[in-house]
Amino acid sequence: MRVRNKPWAKDYMAEHTERMVVEPEPLRGDWQSRFPSDQPLYVEIGTGKGQFIVEMARRHPDHNFIGIEIQMSVIAAALKLVVASGLTNIQLVHTDGVAVNTIFAPAEVAGIFLNFSDPWPKKRHIKRRLTSPVFLSHYQDILQPKGQLQFKTDNRGLFEYSLTSLSNFPMVFEGVWLDLHAATDGVEDVETEYEQKFSSKGPIYQVIAHFPEE
Amino acid sequence: MRVRNKPWAKDYMAEHTERMVVEPEPLRGDWQSRFPSDQPLYVEIGTGKGQFIVEMARRHPDHNFIGIEIQMSVIAAALKLVVASGLTNIQLVHTDGVAVNTIFAPAEVAGIFLNFSDPWPKKRHIKRRLTSPVFLSHYQDILQPKGQLQFKTDNRGLFEYSLTSLSNFPMVFEGVWLDLHAATDGVEDVETEYEQKFSSKGPIYQVIAHFPEE
Ligand SMILES: C[S@@+](CC[C@H](N)C(=O)[O-])C[C@H]1O[C@@H](n2cnc3c(N)ncnc32)[C@H](O)[C@@H]1O
Ligand SMILES: C[S@@+](CC[C@H](N)C(=O)[O-])C[C@H]1O[C@@H](n2cnc3c(N)ncnc32)[C@H](O)[C@@H]1O
Repeated sequence: MRVRNKPWAKDYMAEHTERMVVEPEPLRGDWQSRFPSDQPLYVEIGTGKGQFIVEMARRHPDHNFIGIEIQMSVIAAALKLVVASGLTNIQLVHTDGVAVNTIFAPAEVAGIFLNFSDPWPKKRHIKRRLTSPVFLSHYQDILQPKGQLQFKTDNRGLFEYSLTSLSNFPMVFEGVWLDLHAATDGVEDVETEYEQKFSSKGPIYQVIAHFPEE
Repeated sequence: MRVRNKPWAKDYMAEHTERMVVEPEPLRGDWQSRFPSDQPLYVEIGTGKGQFIVEMARRHPDHNFIGIEIQMSVIAAALKLVVASGLTNIQLVHTDGVAVNTIFAPAEVAGIFLNFSDPWPKKRHIKRRLTSPVFLSHYQDILQPKGQLQFKTDNRGLFEYSLTSLSNFPMVFEGVWLDLHAATDGVEDVETEYEQKFSSKGPIYQVIAHFPEE
């Protein structure tokens, strides 16, 4: 629907297939072919307009990054940022993050980022939360041993839910931050659009976790 | 040292051995003998002046409660409150909580409460935190299967540490609250002295967790 009002999005994406993947399944197990160098692969789900992943790619030239976003008009905006950046260690994928296990092969991914994921506060929508059990099982399928899931949000209810959901899966926490912007431990914080807009309203929460080894 | 300035504490405790245990080891496995009825046994470590445990005992006449406190003058104040309450489902123990596994038999305890435990912020004092691994292993020794550990604090650093420590032990979270006084899920909150004094300064954090079954 949004696309009808933004025909530029579809056109722009079609013009930049070197940075943007619309049919990701054939690349399963072969994502390194999309990058100049074979490097650890980090995936962000719900990339939004791309500020986080572009800055991460700039700071970490020794890693490859993939941003996944479900909304076409939004990922088209991210694509503009990627193209403007000139960075070659970043690719965008227009798809639903719930399908990551059909996009990536087992252990193909070194780390996953979730930033300010939609909260879906209603009980009947729990399954849509990116930290609910089905999503976690797909993350487990694609992450390397000890591969990290890093999640930050300003939404208290979603963070309370997520800590409980991860713990029960089970996942093991490497660190928890209950006011990331007040952290004094030197943890890296690359701000997202959403974070810059809303962080003055309250604390930013973050957890870094991994799946236990079998 | 404190006792020298508060001789009333020692005297008062000696006068109320029906509510107060100073030599707990012989009761290991036999704590129900200290109560009128055999009922699930809940233990608070670091009881302070007793407001929480006395109110819990009042609200839950079908449970037995034991408050453990290391400071004599402090537990003497709790003893006053217990005696004044007239409740018979509560006992106090003057000892160091690190020794709970020498005081209680395996599976003798239905649940453990930690409220506003001393934060011990320095790295070299981590072992003194009541949520550090040695304490957790002693809690595991005495808790029934699925017995709960309930911990609340206003100290962000201690809570961040505790979530990570519990997760790594591992323990499984049943619930996490990042602003207990704003909770809308009807969770019971019996306020402690410390909570009433300091909660206006920021949120109260709480976690309820259990040990996974073998
Ligand atoms: C609140 S925005 C946050 C965007 C960005 N991460 C930030 O922090 O500024 C959440 C984004 O996740 C996207 N999203 C939600 N569910 C998704 C899913 N299942 N797969 C991919 N993207 C999703 C939404 O379209 C939206 O752009
Ligand atoms: C900050 S106070 C909180 C008291 C009370 N729980 C409250 O919330 O008002 C911490 C209490 O724990 C006690 N404490 C600290 N370490 C302890 C230990 N290892 N065993 C038993 N009590 C301890 C201290 O003496 C102090 O009374």
